[in-house]
Amino acid sequence: MTISLRKARTIIRKALEKGRELELKPLSVVVLDAGGHVQAFEREDGAAPGRFAIAQGKAYGAVMLGMAGTAQMARAEAQAYFMAAVNGVYGGQVVPVPGGVLLRDKKGAVIGAVGVTGDTSDNDVLAAVAGIEAAGLQGEI
Amino acid sequence: MTISLRKARTIIRKALEKGRELELKPLSVVVLDAGGHVQAFEREDGAAPGRFAIAQGKAYGAVMLGMAGTAQMARAEAQAYFMAAVNGVYGGQVVPVPGGVLLRDKKGAVIGAVGVTGDTSDNDVLAAVAGIEAAGLQGEI
Amino acid sequence: MTISLRKARTIIRKALEKGRELELKPLSVVVLDAGGHVQAFEREDGAAPGRFAIAQGKAYGAVMLGMAGTAQMARAEAQAYFMAAVNGVYGGQVVPVPGGVLLRDKKGAVIGAVGVTGDTSDNDVLAAVAGIEAAGLQGEI
Amino acid sequence: MTISLRKARTIIRKALEKGRELELKPLSVVVLDAGGHVQAFEREDGAAPGRFAIAQGKAYGAVMLGMAGTAQMARAEAQAYFMAAVNGVYGGQVVPVPGGVLLRDKKGAVIGAVGVTGDTSDNDVLAAVAGIEAAGLQGEI
Repeated sequence: MTISLRKARTIIRKALEKGRELELKPLSVVVLDAGGHVQAFEREDGAAPGRFAIAQGKAYGAVMLGMAGTAQMARAEAQAYFMAAVNGVYGGQVVPVPGGVLLRDKKGAVIGAVGVTGDTSDNDVLAAVAGIEAAGLQGEI
Repeated sequence: MTISLRKARTIIRKALEKGRELELKPLSVVVLDAGGHVQAFEREDGAAPGRFAIAQGKAYGAVMLGMAGTAQMARAEAQAYFMAAVNGVYGGQVVPVPGGVLLRDKKGAVIGAVGVTGDTSDNDVLAAVAGIEAAGLQGEI
Repeated sequence: MTISLRKARTIIRKALEKGRELELKPLSVVVLDAGGHVQAFEREDGAAPGRFAIAQGKAYGAVMLGMAGTAQMARAEAQAYFMAAVNGVYGGQVVPVPGGVLLRDKKGAVIGAVGVTGDTSDNDVLAAVAGIEAAGLQGEI
Repeated sequence: MTISLRKARTIIRKALEKGRELELKPLSVVVLDAGGHVQAFEREDGAAPGRFAIAQGKAYGAVMLGMAGTAQMARAEAQAYFMAAVNGVYGGQVVPVPGGVLLRDKKGAVIGAVGVTGDTSDNDVLAAVAGIEAAGLQGEI
């Protein structure tokens, strides 16, 4: 199973709404499928032009490693060269900080990931989780 | 000036609706800003996983060269090695066929591009144009 | 809005003049537009051959992240693996030190960036700021 | 010996003036040194954002191969796969068409190259040659 476009839209719309509610900086939100491929993305007006790649990097590493952003950050802090090598292995597409959230179905299988960027990593997570919950899914931050 | 997220959403939604109306295969639609950076993207359920890169490649070449997909295809047919070289120059991100549509403001300045992929190139263009017109913009196919 | 070639020329010429006035080492100065694309560049005689890429990397990261060199350096010092990952995400084109200066219009919107390299990072900033002020623009260092 | 910044500036300024005189589309002009490294570059307002890479690709191939654009095009037409391979070898930085002009000193040694893009390849050459002659140099087109 993988995430549907309908659910991806809900996640993005609600994550952006949460950002406005919390008065965060302009956010960018990507949803990747179970294979790490882009399903949907939106970048708010005023966000820096390069934010797609950051959002995608947060979510891509989560799917490819099966490890969400918080765990990736812990690993990077313990063993920076390992995450640097992982970044190289995946063609520079891994950003190991919170804001890359794994999506799981009810049995715990990974069905995709969400990547949010634009504010602090912790605030990015708040927006991601709001979107994921609105879509009736479980996120692993 | 560059494309807004609100307009990008309209383009994508209406392009996908046109695809359903014409009973096209599942489509993927990207909107890039005036600098060639991703503003929004959606991939319909059932579309192949790699469609983001094709949609992006159609639109990216259009912005970077200031030349829409139909003109790129004509150049590729006349001088294949030139478009192959251009693809190399832009890191393999150029797909020189119809479906990459330049967005212009009323003075003719490029404000972004739309990339559609999933059906024949000609049908991809029909969907792109439907979205662009719904957003009140002019497209150069 | 984006930076014009006329303003870019002024920035470069005046930044180089400042370098001569302060007796800095030979400088290289790039001006990027709001999408991170090169508008103009000059490398003084005697500067090392690879200075384009350093100047471009300072300015490119600033535009793509919406974060000037000083803030990038602070982030790199606090969380080195994050800026290393960002460098990977942007294809190795990010140099997170002072000398990458964001250009903003009167409303605060980013319209481009300047990258200066050749002397110490702090001196590179002095030259960049002299050029930016001569062009009647605001720089965020 | 290599091209000086002063000469590079003259080449660029006069090439752009020639473009305005001939009413060409907005041009972009790069000057590379004898090692193929960027010495100076300007992109006129209204030129597409990706023109730096095309100009650079025309000039880079000329320096690296010691073969100007017209000769590269002849080779590409005779043996497209060879120039495609060369593009790969040089990291995608070779655009084998006229507009990449070798600069030689009075003894015939290569001291750099000029790359012009924006109008037809033939018109790009006219602008390049005007700049090179104004700088008192010889160009091999």
